[in-house]
Parts: sequence; structure tokens; C-alpha cells
Amino acid sequence: MIQFRTATQDHLPVIVHLLAQDALGTSREKDIHPLPQAYIDAFNRMKQQVGNSIIVALDQEQVIACLQLTIIHGISRFGTSRAQIEGVRVDRNYRGQRIGEALIRYAIEEAKQAGCTMMQLTTDKQREDAHRFYERLGFVASHDGMKLFWND
Amino acid sequence: MIQFRTATQDHLPVIVHLLAQDALGTSREKDIHPLPQAYIDAFNRMKQQVGNSIIVALDQEQVIACLQLTIIHGISRFGTSRAQIEGVRVDRNYRGQRIGEALIRYAIEEAKQAGCTMMQLTTDKQREDAHRFYERLGFVASHDGMKLFWND
Repeated sequence: MIQFRTATQDHLPVIVHLLAQDALGTSREKDIHPLPQAYIDAFNRMKQQVGNSIIVALDQEQVIACLQLTIIHGISRFGTSRAQIEGVRVDRNYRGQRIGEALIRYAIEEAKQAGCTMMQLTTDKQREDAHRFYERLGFVASHDGMKLFWND
Repeated sequence: MIQFRTATQDHLPVIVHLLAQDALGTSREKDIHPLPQAYIDAFNRMKQQVGNSIIVALDQEQVIACLQLTIIHGISRFGTSRAQIEGVRVDRNYRGQRIGEALIRYAIEEAKQAGCTMMQLTTDKQREDAHRFYERLGFVASHDGMKLFWND
């Protein structure tokens, strides 16, 4: 029986492990023990933003999947609030069991409760499987997701 | 001399006017006087979210361009914070003067001040001009932007 919950700091090492397990994420993360302070600081920054959280899927209290859910209030579309998801990951030992789908559906319900009228995400064009996964859930790839990185 | 500033509620009617002026936005907004309460409520919701604001460009105290800037803290990429922009609009009487470009550059500086290491946005695939505009600023269309709307 899988449970869904807002992550606490106790879940953070496994969340980082899931992020590092990902093909594109492996070079971006430092999945070491003890957990680098940068992650703890980041988690504390998140907690100070109302509507910004990590949702985890738990199997017997163990984190097996996660995503970041951010509620973003705004003016456009007659003052609509939108939900955004980032960093959707499922433990590789739990793939093919529709846990990702259930996690997204849980996030959609959370977003509705928060008054959102839509959900959005960007997915790397290299992730063809992810693209199909989201289309099955009803997402439409109507937009281009553009990114700008800087180093200073 | 164009000035950039975080929007106050006084700027809200002109912000809605700019959103409604847009080809895709015209059917989504209600640009009427008095301003519908929905927009004022939305503005107040935004104010309660640390890091979520509208930036306006002002010509002699008159709003001529706007964008929504949202600072989103997160765990991935070693605890990076990202800046997101939405609803970038320039008054049609001020187009071709690089005001949009200056507004984005201002937002990038604000994002750096807030500790972000990147900026992201999604742009409707119908907006070919916008795509080129962001590429000139250094953005890369590496992702697909996917959206899901619901009505209940």
C-alpha cells in the first residue's frame, strides 16, 4: 500500500538519492553521506515558501518516488493559480507499477485543493519516455521550455 | 528614461490591460473598469508568496511592460534556486525599442540577487517571434513545456 505525503527533512537523503539515480541528474547531484549541507539549506529555503514542497510516495515508510510541487499564484488568465511540478523521480526498483502516475494524480488533487486550475511542467526533449508518460496523463506539449544558465 | 520596479496594486489595471492586449490573452482576461475583484484577490495571493512578484517597466510612472518573476527554491541540481518568468508583455506602442529585452535583463539581475543560478520560461509554440526573442537573450529551447487544464 503506497502512501503519499509532504516530505520532511528525514526524507531528504533518499530524495537526493533518487535525483542522483536519474540519467541526466547523476552528474548534477552529490549523493554522499553525510548529506551535504547545501541540500539541507535548500530544503529550509523551500519550507519558507508557502506552496513549495516535495511530495513523496512511501512504501512501508520508505521513500520510493518524489516530485516537487509549487503553487504559483498569478494575475494572467483572470487571476489563475497554477501548479508546477519538477524533478519527478521513481526508484528504479519500483518502475512499471504506475507509481509515477499515482504520484502525479495525488499532486493534481493537492493542486485542486490549493485552488489551481492547471498544472504545468517542462521535460527535457531527450526524455522521450517522459513525454509519452505525461501525454497519457492528459498533458499537452503546447509550449517550448527555454532555459538560461549563468555561472556568476 | 525607463525605470523597472516591483508592481504595486496601483499598477494592476494597466498590467491587466497589457495581458488583454496580447493575441492569445485577449479571450482570457476581463479588461474592464472597475477592475474585477478576481485580479485584486490574485495580486494579494501573490504578495503572500515570498519571491513571487510582477516587475513593471515605467515610462514617466506609466506601466509600459510587465512580467511575472517567481523565485523557486528546490533540491535538485545540488539545491539550486531557479527563477521563472511568465506573462512577459510590452505595450504595443512601445514595441521595437528593446524594452522587453531590458525588462528580462533586469529580471535576470533580480534573480541573481536572490541566489538563482538559472532562469526558465515556457513559450507557446505558436509564438515564433517570442522564441527568437528569447534565443537572442541566450535561452535554449531544450525542453517541452506541457500543460494540463481542468475545470472542476
